[in-house]
Amino acid sequence: MDVVTAQKPQDRLAALLAEDMNAVNTLIRERMASKHAPRIPEVTAHLVEAGGKRLRPMLTLAAARLCGYQGSDHVKLAATVEFIHTATLLHDDVVDESKQRRGRPTANLLWDNQSSVLVGDYLFARSFQLMVETGSLRVLDILANASATIAEGEVLQLTAARDLATTEATYIQIVRGKTAALFSAATEAGAVIASASDEQERALFAYGDALGIAFQIADDLLDYQGESGTIGKNVGDDFREGKLTLPVIKAIAAADAEERAFWQRTIGAGKQEPGDLETALGLLQRHGALEATRRDAVVWAGKARSALEALPDLPVRDMLADLATYVVDRLN
Amino acid sequence: MDVVTAQKPQDRLAALLAEDMNAVNTLIRERMASKHAPRIPEVTAHLVEAGGKRLRPMLTLAAARLCGYQGSDHVKLAATVEFIHTATLLHDDVVDESKQRRGRPTANLLWDNQSSVLVGDYLFARSFQLMVETGSLRVLDILANASATIAEGEVLQLTAARDLATTEATYIQIVRGKTAALFSAATEAGAVIASASDEQERALFAYGDALGIAFQIADDLLDYQGESGTIGKNVGDDFREGKLTLPVIKAIAAADAEERAFWQRTIGAGKQEPGDLETALGLLQRHGALEATRRDAVVWAGKARSALEALPDLPVRDMLADLATYVVDRLN
Repeated sequence: MDVVTAQKPQDRLAALLAEDMNAVNTLIRERMASKHAPRIPEVTAHLVEAGGKRLRPMLTLAAARLCGYQGSDHVKLAATVEFIHTATLLHDDVVDESKQRRGRPTANLLWDNQSSVLVGDYLFARSFQLMVETGSLRVLDILANASATIAEGEVLQLTAARDLATTEATYIQIVRGKTAALFSAATEAGAVIASASDEQERALFAYGDALGIAFQIADDLLDYQGESGTIGKNVGDDFREGKLTLPVIKAIAAADAEERAFWQRTIGAGKQEPGDLETALGLLQRHGALEATRRDAVVWAGKARSALEALPDLPVRDMLADLATYVVDRLN
Repeated sequence: MDVVTAQKPQDRLAALLAEDMNAVNTLIRERMASKHAPRIPEVTAHLVEAGGKRLRPMLTLAAARLCGYQGSDHVKLAATVEFIHTATLLHDDVVDESKQRRGRPTANLLWDNQSSVLVGDYLFARSFQLMVETGSLRVLDILANASATIAEGEVLQLTAARDLATTEATYIQIVRGKTAALFSAATEAGAVIASASDEQERALFAYGDALGIAFQIADDLLDYQGESGTIGKNVGDDFREGKLTLPVIKAIAAADAEERAFWQRTIGAGKQEPGDLETALGLLQRHGALEATRRDAVVWAGKARSALEALPDLPVRDMLADLATYVVDRLN
């Protein structure tokens, strides 16, 4: 394996799209400013400069490139997607009462919930202005729909929290909303701005959708088996917050009466004692729930790769395929 | 005065625009639903059905009518404007930690802050979808800009809270953002959808801007001299929250050293004792701050009426003019 292929696929994508990504970063810095309210760039800089992977804007750039786009509106779209993502992070951290994000204190902790809510609203409005500048009603439609689906997924997650009756189907629906909707909108919008064929557009939507689901399943699995240093949050956060993620849903489906009582107390009623996380991890292992979750993530990554077959055989396509593989490979 | 002219101008507008307003209300009910997350219509119904005045959507309908519009997209725009307004109310109540809105408990109190944040996001996304359906990029541009200005105004208000150095100019800027931006966008968008002339468009923007400022100044004045039963919130709320509204800014500008110390303690440091509100009211009276504030509101209402002169002399124009008068007449 030579040096280039040894790199992570997102690093190879970043290298290939470096010029466009620089333009995206410049645009983000320009547009997150506010003449009148200096609190706004303070909060956004904290989050935007925190070294996020910029995965979503990269997907838009890659999709546009893959469809042969020659213009410059994909840069605006990519910044739009990152703004929507950043706005949802700010609001999520208020909703989850999070204290850490990407290994740093959250904005709601450094400033206050008020700033996080309002600056999130500001970024959402800014993203909307950027989209309007592209002049593409189709793109506006896609991203407006994605925004509604994201909020709907978040509300569904909120009402499903602590509900032991949550099914795998509901879980996938939540994940499609809160995570995959922006991935699929990012790739579909890249295709649309490039005036790609309907088939290519559908293929890039399907890729983003499956990649987003694989990504979130992997994230939820890492919450139980990652190391705090590498995942930027603490192992067991979802358990403590009573979130019904895929590993727990699978373990509950296989639980005997005594185990069910354990899940009912710890997740359903939220009454946790020292040692409960360890017991939970033991139950997840005993029923093979972690391994089954990993297999599901692998299946979704496979769907993402298959979707790409309808697209031109270019280096950027291989990188997108490798990205799907990587998302689940980090679980090993 | 006959029965018709004795009615409030907003009631006459509502009667004139009844058919369109029914269509707006039907559309709002349709679009605030969510197939997957029943919490969403619960929260929105609580707020949307709470008997708000629907002032902003009425402004859009009236502006479109005044410019001779014959189509039906103004209904979508009016619903858009009400969704944006409702979304900002949900987020405002989280930011202000409000317990009452329109005389009823707030959503953040009945459910939780999380639901208010996420359902607000959902409504904002839904408003965006509705706008896209009109197919007018100019309208999208106007409402995207208004959304950014609203959030900016709210952040500015947040950072100016408890700051005794806040000037009347900063106050007007905050008010332009948090209130007038949606009024002026509502009227301007009505003109744009009707393909009105540039002059009429500018006139309707100016009307909405001045009306919104008059409306907010009156609201801030009523916070000190209204009766709790009639204003749907409690007298002195702004004082308790340390908001630098126009009456207080004027009283501080005229304060002697002892009075300044009072404002510094109660508003600047937020240390309030029983009897402080009465003392504050006494200072506002002594310096004529309430009367000066009322005069400012009257001036802005006059600007709103003047702006209408560029528009056709139709009954709906007179009602809009009367509305500007009414907004400040309720102060007597």
